[in-house]
Amino acid sequence: MKIEVLRNVLQKNEWAAEENRACFDERGVTCVNLLGGAGCGKTSLLEATLPTLKENLRVAVLEGDLATTRDAERIAALDVPVVQLLTDGGCHLNATLVQQALKQIPLDELDLLVIENVGNPICPANFDLGEHRRVVVLSVAEGDDKPAKYPLLFKDADLIVLTKCDLLPYVKFDVERARADLARVNPRAEIVRTDTNTATGIDRLAAWLSATARPQASA
Amino acid sequence: MKIEVLRNVLQKNEWAAEENRACFDERGVTCVNLLGGAGCGKTSLLEATLPTLKENLRVAVLEGDLATTRDAERIAALDVPVVQLLTDGGCHLNATLVQQALKQIPLDELDLLVIENVGNPICPANFDLGEHRRVVVLSVAEGDDKPAKYPLLFKDADLIVLTKCDLLPYVKFDVERARADLARVNPRAEIVRTDTNTATGIDRLAAWLSATARPQASA
Repeated sequence: MKIEVLRNVLQKNEWAAEENRACFDERGVTCVNLLGGAGCGKTSLLEATLPTLKENLRVAVLEGDLATTRDAERIAALDVPVVQLLTDGGCHLNATLVQQALKQIPLDELDLLVIENVGNPICPANFDLGEHRRVVVLSVAEGDDKPAKYPLLFKDADLIVLTKCDLLPYVKFDVERARADLARVNPRAEIVRTDTNTATGIDRLAAWLSATARPQASA
Repeated sequence: MKIEVLRNVLQKNEWAAEENRACFDERGVTCVNLLGGAGCGKTSLLEATLPTLKENLRVAVLEGDLATTRDAERIAALDVPVVQLLTDGGCHLNATLVQQALKQIPLDELDLLVIENVGNPICPANFDLGEHRRVVVLSVAEGDDKPAKYPLLFKDADLIVLTKCDLLPYVKFDVERARADLARVNPRAEIVRTDTNTATGIDRLAAWLSATARPQASA
């Protein structure tokens, strides 16, 4: 019985995800699902990257959170269209929630939509939102054992972003050990080392996102 | 329909939690549920605190993880009885899972049982395991906005432990802002600042845990 219900929930989500993806494809919008634990630095990465992305792409953001509109306010301050999706305690975004939010976004005028998922290293990974690419964020302050301990988060990532690398001298994080574990879980994803305080790696992240999107309307 | 299923799941969990609590009470064991996001430093706190606790208490640990036995190995290295509970991708421990694990622990010979939950700031907070006290861990590297963004994690905490305070000079974390948000969500919980590198606050945490437990058999 429990398995049946779970299957229905995931199947319903998969249908909505396919609808979302078709909707993006029709309009030439690339959708990126940004995942990672609480406080890994997803919003800070967006704050650092959006000014560069805006130069060549029409970009908007969906912010997923349990409570508060703090993240959406940070994105809006950059003059980027943003919708805050509140899950009211829910532990992940799903494709139906995203579908509702899409009504508030002018998709015809977009090249790239970034969906920042709820800060949670587990549940969001199970729910396809209709995205084209997954970017998974890991803060070095979380420890180098996380790829082995949370394999489901990393296995479908197209890009893995290590954040807060300026903290490497002060935390126990062996980059090579993390790379080796990541290679076992996901041999395909590129890994970018970043630090928003010195803007390290931000250009590379921006370039990856720009290459992913299809700037049809930009010069 | 979905609400009905969720209610059944939570009700079944509540029954098992009450059974666990009765089982602990009969044997004079105090049970502490240790919660927090991935990489907030729960296992490191235990590693730092257990040597002191062991001096006066008979203590054991249940380690909850999605995958690997790495955390249990770290606890076993301290010569503390430990059972690794693997959720196989599941995002939280529940009282029934704990019930199974209790069969492997000599409860009659214990004063304190610490259950380290799955690293996740959301789902574990909804599941009573039968514990007497909740200790919630927040790493300063996660950012001072987390109490407001994850209120359900903090609202039922008996103790809130700020970890990695040696990183305060390098991260954006205003302790007073976090305290103000915590006071709104949970005015009752004591807050302890810790750092396992210099053992700051570890004595205070050990004293709190010792006071919580009832060392009936110790000298």
